[in-house]
Amino acid sequence: MAVNLAAPDPSSLHPVPGVELGVATAGVRKLGRTDLLVVRLAPGSAVAGVFTRNRFCAAPVIIARKHLRHPVRALVVNTGNANAGTGSDGLKRAMQVCAALAHHLGCKAREVLPFSTGVIMEPLPADRITAALPRALLERSDWLSAARAIMTTDTVPKAFSRKLRLSTGEATVTGIAKGAGMIRPDMATMLGFVFTDARVPRKRLDAMVRNAADRSFNCITVDGDTSTNDAFVLAATGRGPDASSRRDLAGVEEAVGSVAQSLAQAIVRDAEGATKFVTVRVERGRSPDECRRVAYAIAHSPLVKTAFFASDPNLGRILAAIGYSGASLDADKVDLYLDDMLVAQKGGRAPSYREEQAVAAMRKPEFSVRAVLNRGRAQATVWTCDLSFDYVKINAEYRT
Amino acid sequence: MAVNLAAPDPSSLHPVPGVELGVATAGVRKLGRTDLLVVRLAPGSAVAGVFTRNRFCAAPVIIARKHLRHPVRALVVNTGNANAGTGSDGLKRAMQVCAALAHHLGCKAREVLPFSTGVIMEPLPADRITAALPRALLERSDWLSAARAIMTTDTVPKAFSRKLRLSTGEATVTGIAKGAGMIRPDMATMLGFVFTDARVPRKRLDAMVRNAADRSFNCITVDGDTSTNDAFVLAATGRGPDASSRRDLAGVEEAVGSVAQSLAQAIVRDAEGATKFVTVRVERGRSPDECRRVAYAIAHSPLVKTAFFASDPNLGRILAAIGYSGASLDADKVDLYLDDMLVAQKGGRAPSYREEQAVAAMRKPEFSVRAVLNRGRAQATVWTCDLSFDYVKINAEYRT
Repeated sequence: MAVNLAAPDPSSLHPVPGVELGVATAGVRKLGRTDLLVVRLAPGSAVAGVFTRNRFCAAPVIIARKHLRHPVRALVVNTGNANAGTGSDGLKRAMQVCAALAHHLGCKAREVLPFSTGVIMEPLPADRITAALPRALLERSDWLSAARAIMTTDTVPKAFSRKLRLSTGEATVTGIAKGAGMIRPDMATMLGFVFTDARVPRKRLDAMVRNAADRSFNCITVDGDTSTNDAFVLAATGRGPDASSRRDLAGVEEAVGSVAQSLAQAIVRDAEGATKFVTVRVERGRSPDECRRVAYAIAHSPLVKTAFFASDPNLGRILAAIGYSGASLDADKVDLYLDDMLVAQKGGRAPSYREEQAVAAMRKPEFSVRAVLNRGRAQATVWTCDLSFDYVKINAEYRT
Repeated sequence: MAVNLAAPDPSSLHPVPGVELGVATAGVRKLGRTDLLVVRLAPGSAVAGVFTRNRFCAAPVIIARKHLRHPVRALVVNTGNANAGTGSDGLKRAMQVCAALAHHLGCKAREVLPFSTGVIMEPLPADRITAALPRALLERSDWLSAARAIMTTDTVPKAFSRKLRLSTGEATVTGIAKGAGMIRPDMATMLGFVFTDARVPRKRLDAMVRNAADRSFNCITVDGDTSTNDAFVLAATGRGPDASSRRDLAGVEEAVGSVAQSLAQAIVRDAEGATKFVTVRVERGRSPDECRRVAYAIAHSPLVKTAFFASDPNLGRILAAIGYSGASLDADKVDLYLDDMLVAQKGGRAPSYREEQAVAAMRKPEFSVRAVLNRGRAQATVWTCDLSFDYVKINAEYRT
């Protein structure tokens, strides 16, 4: 029941020279489910990443962050178990998986980045994962299979791809992501991986992954819960055209940002129980931070989100959320729009406001809420969804 | 379906000399529903209050805050309409109600405190309220009727009463409150009113109402939404014994705090859709503020709250919430208890942890979550509830 989101057409997902994919069924949590992805990167690939700022970050996050200081030859991703809240034993198990994959590839364990997603605080079945690695390495999987292999409560695989023309030739950017709940990324989403064959200097890649995260995964929220395992990784294999001119680098950055944004929005469209995709835009605030605070207050309010679900233009709930956001704003100056319709003016009901029109706007599967603070020039956008019966159902039954 | 909360026995609610109550049916929103309460206070009563810090505070809050600078002779409370997000017209309508009541009582409009609760952003039907005032003034209502008259989505009227012995005689403290959703008070709850016949100096009353709020209404959350209309008022009529000695004042303060705490907990017990009453206690933090941040992160997490609903000891969700609370804590030091059961130790699963026991603990209608940060001496307690299907249902259907 994702909102305006279907599984991508496999032919739209371009291979990325220098990237090889293999999936397997390891039986991490459920039998017969593809739950393991191995991504091999050509030697010399540049890789950068951003990770959760949750203080309880998972074992694989700790290790991946450390391994990023070295060259990276492979990523290994399992679903079904997050290997989080597992202490030093969790670190050992994640390293066991890295070492096993490194052994097969003839590289060092520190050249492997591990990623896990799934249930928290249960021991990672590392033996089952390592046993499945050879099968994954024999596979030549496509992007759609890779996107499917990393799903948990996702209902739709998430993958986007773009070709772009650089001065040195045609480059490709393709990415996959997973995530549907426990989503309020802070530096990164649940799991997002974007690959390009363009040759990009490693230092530049760091900035690129941060900028991409800031306009994509850092602008979405489902339930305000920042995961312990969030990671967003960008790899440039260098097997395609060289991006060294300022203009080519800007082109790659734009394409990476656009793929990341499509992935981030796909996560919200496929959010647990979501029936609406809502763009919350805050304008004319004093600072971007103030605008983000206000936008997240709206996007996190359970009352606002249930009103979205009910197509109920209970605008007071939105104004109340703006009011408690912590921004020291002047309530009498705030204007509020639903799509292009002015619904509140100077903090009160707009004279032209007609509830029927607001209901009609909110009945659509996609609409926007726009708050104009009228006290500065900054702005921010957050994408979110509604809070439905199914969110409760999915999360009450997740482990049963 | 409130959690361990029944309507109070009327005989347990002691009259407070100097306080007269009258309720009426004004038809603010629904016909035939008692929706108006007038509280008359004896001349010379001292009154203090704390109010919402939401920047979109409602018209009655703006007026009540201002009128508190003067002597107070009466409170007037309506349900069905919050008179919030209504701009200058809302202020006029609230003043119209104050003036009408003042006219009947032969006092000044500024000696009346107005309170409203209900739907936001709709014009207050002040005419219907003023028309009902004479009927309310003719009534001699009891506390239970008064508590009922201020309910909105509450299912149980909330009233508590205590007698206490001062050196100068026996004093009474009785209070009522309402609230079930949009609850994350900041300085005060939705609406809470506590009355005593003890004679307390006005200046002391200010501190008393703040202290009482800090140990009661400021320790609860249902959905993290701070209302536009929150108000907590304490009135001392002085028609009973004099509380001027330090010891008597401490006695009154203790009784006021205890009545306020019972009212605050009753709000959580009767929270929209609540099936569990959960005490979240954070211990050994560096500062009370840090402990409150952690406690509220747990108490607000939709994932934690749905796990409470499902009696699912998904402890990782609690650790994740602690991790993103913003407290700069060391995750490896955190211990977690469910009631008295150690479930996580040093940030990981406790060796003695048995899931069946945790499920049993969470199946109870009341249990506690205790996070021990092991980095200081501060502590904080927050009371909250679970997030159930019915929360979504109630809030999706509130206005329909």
